[in-house]
Amino acid sequence: MIKIMSDAMKSVRIAAMEELIGTEIKVLDKGFVRLIDYMGDDAAIVQAARVSYGAGTKTVNEDAGLINYLMRHRHTSPFEMCEIKLHVKMPIFIARQWLRHRTANVNELSGRYSVINNESYLPEIEELCVQSKGNKQGRDVQIAEERAKQIQQYMQDHANETFEQYDNMINNDNLARELSRITLPQSTYTEMYWKIDLHNLLHFISLRNKPNAQKEIRDFADVIAEQIVKIWVPHSYNAFMNYKMNAVTFSGVEMAELSQLLDKEKISAFIEANSKAKGELREMCEKLQAMLNKQ
Amino acid sequence: MIKIMSDAMKSVRIAAMEELIGTEIKVLDKGFVRLIDYMGDDAAIVQAARVSYGAGTKTVNEDAGLINYLMRHRHTSPFEMCEIKLHVKMPIFIARQWLRHRTANVNELSGRYSVINNESYLPEIEELCVQSKGNKQGRDVQIAEERAKQIQQYMQDHANETFEQYDNMINNDNLARELSRITLPQSTYTEMYWKIDLHNLLHFISLRNKPNAQKEIRDFADVIAEQIVKIWVPHSYNAFMNYKMNAVTFSGVEMAELSQLLDKEKISAFIEANSKAKGELREMCEKLQAMLNKQ
Amino acid sequence: MIKIMSDAMKSVRIAAMEELIGTEIKVLDKGFVRLIDYMGDDAAIVQAARVSYGAGTKTVNEDAGLINYLMRHRHTSPFEMCEIKLHVKMPIFIARQWLRHRTANVNELSGRYSVINNESYLPEIEELCVQSKGNKQGRDVQIAEERAKQIQQYMQDHANETFEQYDNMINNDNLARELSRITLPQSTYTEMYWKIDLHNLLHFISLRNKPNAQKEIRDFADVIAEQIVKIWVPHSYNAFMNYKMNAVTFSGVEMAELSQLLDKEKISAFIEANSKAKGELREMCEKLQAMLNKQ
Amino acid sequence: MIKIMSDAMKSVRIAAMEELIGTEIKVLDKGFVRLIDYMGDDAAIVQAARVSYGAGTKTVNEDAGLINYLMRHRHTSPFEMCEIKLHVKMPIFIARQWLRHRTANVNELSGRYSVINNESYLPEIEELCVQSKGNKQGRDVQIAEERAKQIQQYMQDHANETFEQYDNMINNDNLARELSRITLPQSTYTEMYWKIDLHNLLHFISLRNKPNAQKEIRDFADVIAEQIVKIWVPHSYNAFMNYKMNAVTFSGVEMAELSQLLDKEKISAFIEANSKAKGELREMCEKLQAMLNKQ
Repeated sequence: MIKIMSDAMKSVRIAAMEELIGTEIKVLDKGFVRLIDYMGDDAAIVQAARVSYGAGTKTVNEDAGLINYLMRHRHTSPFEMCEIKLHVKMPIFIARQWLRHRTANVNELSGRYSVINNESYLPEIEELCVQSKGNKQGRDVQIAEERAKQIQQYMQDHANETFEQYDNMINNDNLARELSRITLPQSTYTEMYWKIDLHNLLHFISLRNKPNAQKEIRDFADVIAEQIVKIWVPHSYNAFMNYKMNAVTFSGVEMAELSQLLDKEKISAFIEANSKAKGELREMCEKLQAMLNKQ
Repeated sequence: MIKIMSDAMKSVRIAAMEELIGTEIKVLDKGFVRLIDYMGDDAAIVQAARVSYGAGTKTVNEDAGLINYLMRHRHTSPFEMCEIKLHVKMPIFIARQWLRHRTANVNELSGRYSVINNESYLPEIEELCVQSKGNKQGRDVQIAEERAKQIQQYMQDHANETFEQYDNMINNDNLARELSRITLPQSTYTEMYWKIDLHNLLHFISLRNKPNAQKEIRDFADVIAEQIVKIWVPHSYNAFMNYKMNAVTFSGVEMAELSQLLDKEKISAFIEANSKAKGELREMCEKLQAMLNKQ
Repeated sequence: MIKIMSDAMKSVRIAAMEELIGTEIKVLDKGFVRLIDYMGDDAAIVQAARVSYGAGTKTVNEDAGLINYLMRHRHTSPFEMCEIKLHVKMPIFIARQWLRHRTANVNELSGRYSVINNESYLPEIEELCVQSKGNKQGRDVQIAEERAKQIQQYMQDHANETFEQYDNMINNDNLARELSRITLPQSTYTEMYWKIDLHNLLHFISLRNKPNAQKEIRDFADVIAEQIVKIWVPHSYNAFMNYKMNAVTFSGVEMAELSQLLDKEKISAFIEANSKAKGELREMCEKLQAMLNKQ
Repeated sequence: MIKIMSDAMKSVRIAAMEELIGTEIKVLDKGFVRLIDYMGDDAAIVQAARVSYGAGTKTVNEDAGLINYLMRHRHTSPFEMCEIKLHVKMPIFIARQWLRHRTANVNELSGRYSVINNESYLPEIEELCVQSKGNKQGRDVQIAEERAKQIQQYMQDHANETFEQYDNMINNDNLARELSRITLPQSTYTEMYWKIDLHNLLHFISLRNKPNAQKEIRDFADVIAEQIVKIWVPHSYNAFMNYKMNAVTFSGVEMAELSQLLDKEKISAFIEANSKAKGELREMCEKLQAMLNKQ
């Protein structure tokens, strides 16, 4: 990671992030994510963690190792020491899911102050899918293409006609903006400045980039994770992927079942081979030993 | 305030609140506020405050007086010791303002799980007002009644037609609910369980029951204040009205101006008459004396 | 669970919780946890969840099943619909760990308003343990009993002498309370009213009742979990134990390792035997299948 | 305000803040406030506010004017768009007041991980004051100097002896750090990284830099306000001073009293002279008119 430094400046800026600032990363048909500003980097997380640990941490002295340790053991507060500010444009039905995350700062476009532009989300044909049966909140396979095209056309026409009447009420009738906008569809685009700390951003990604989140917000979460967080705090990103996104949790009941499905010899061999391991590998051996004990 | 007590029960319930539980208090054309549950009362605020003050508070021993003192001096934490849970039904454009208050617990109807009913807010004729000039986010006088009726009719027809297509997509095409709903207007009714502590509820009321809030959310805030809070915690309600809602704040610059507009003699007389006052009256004299000193 | 109902009352109270109200459950040598009030029960969680799910949830209709589902899939907001208020007395060094949980309401005894009683935490002999090497923040085996007794005696004498001087400064010198108290040890007992929703309470327990938390706060967390939460919301308590406290998480890297340690035949048999399972068992099969695929 | 810009950098840094980074600003005898990082400036507040206002704000187009407007009308969210990170060292009894502000991110030195240095707050002779009678939580005049010196000496000796025993338990007995530290006085210095947004920082200052806050935390709040915030966001600082710190609020009851104490003629003249005023002056006239109407 290349950092920008200058004589007049004591704070450190990340070159790749500076380059990203201001660029609209397109999401959906008319939305975007745009980096506005950021505070801190992987080193800032380590720096704050070391205040807590003080003289007691001489052995956990590699930065990436410490970040892994913090992520693994749910020491979340150091990740709150980084902050990011994004300008995001998304449909209102997505904004409503987004703003359920309360630990963030928000300034959203107001339909009371401003005249709203005729911009609404029009799903691609391949997104027009039937209701999922397994996932009560999701979608399944595409509906027949012929009909999908009609539906898409309807959505487009409906939005255009609704905005036409909106403009009419705003301009010809001078009807208050706060009333004229109530007919606009939930697919109408809105935008906001959104500022959040890294811990809560990762939590957002973990909830909104998982299969049962709505596809449209997954697209945003994915862009933020892969095109911003990964560049901003690469060590934390890796730790997050390994310990959160790709991790699998078994309940107490499931652990008892799983214990019966292990190859006892292989496990004993694994534990023996790693009997003097430290850190993560030792923790793995402890989990395995506990499973052996249940057999 | 009548309290319900029984041998099997150590907690105290307020008779008038028990009666209110479950009743839909109508707001707007199809919305409501419905009390679900509550924790604490005026006495609970005092009880918690006395933990902080301990032996040090022998002289502030009247409950209403202590509540006034706490409200006046921004000792907000005791008011957080009361909690209320409401079931609220409101249009989506109001829900979006509502949920900007982050310090609350929310379970809202999900358009991904559920089929949405054809219920949308239809403003009364007299609510269809022109854009305000002074208040960029508000409305002013009514528009011509003839045209208002047409607009109201349009809003009704527009909602009906949109919901007809929604039902069609849901039932005939089996289009996923999370997609079908994106065309529905922002006037569509939603509902939620909303749980909040008294301090944050009063803050909500102070922001949403003021003239520059949108009329439709003012209606909700007003119902909550006058028909629920007033019954639940009458002392706190009174203190809130006097020290927050009916209070007037003058900036530093305005105070300098105001100091020039006072009747010096009357003020000196007032201060002298109350020279031995305690508590609130003493504080008033101090404010007046500071103004005299600026003349 | 026996519920108390009466004609004058629409809210439901839990008999066992009513009995508990006001009782000091002793923790450590002089501390306690005392139930003050509560809002909601397991049914209130289900009730709020059903607002979100609406008509879409006909198949998930058993309450315990729904609570399990919510806990398993991190649908945390319905658990925020229950609230509890406790009166807790604990040493200051524990209060400082406690108050790092920010999503709670607090009224703590103030050393500025009140004269502090001579009450400080004196560890039992068997608690006086040497510094742990593995756990940089924990303790290991007991130190020699002879020396432990001396240390305990020192701690007692030190507290008594410090409080004697404190009383002296307060009573003889009339030194301001806010200054006199600065010499008092961190073992000094404080007390607070603490109000928190169930979701955040469970999070508190999951962090403070785990092996690397300080033994003294574990004692409090354990009492709250076993003697209060378990009585209050038994279904949620069970779900929490199974899906959180007794659950084991394997990182992405660990899952790859674990995949090599399974008995392939047993797993295939397990999956086949449960090929038509629903809900949790289906999810277990999916996890196992993913592991098989990695072999 | 001089801003640092470079070709490789799109974000803007404030020269005076860069200079400040890393410098310990001394507070009390051994404490400090040290700027670590910051995000945003006055312009960032305006930038975020304009997202909300969009096309609707052509007339409120001066930045300082907009900041004044936002502060005056409690539009707090744009002020949340700035963030600051400080390294602060303060006595534990102050840290405990500090951390009651929950909307902040914190990493504090842990007495479980680290050996604590022998550093405790020793009040100056002139700070050793008698208990205030009017302000139950405050101090009044100095106690007799002779005795003050004795008390100061006692505090010093007490801290030294306590730390000597602490070192003894840590080094000779290898008693766990988490136990050894419980005897240390509340005057012991701790340190933390503390990150907070500007809105909540101003709220912190407004509560902690007022006369009834403890003198020692006022010192910190004052340094943060005068030596950091004033440099960082000068327009916001001015608005905060005028509309919050130097503002005076009169309750509903007080306003009725005050209305009787005005010079009616002067007020009428003031209103007439400013009859065509806009913005703030118009608002002042409205407040005065309301008072006239009460006479």
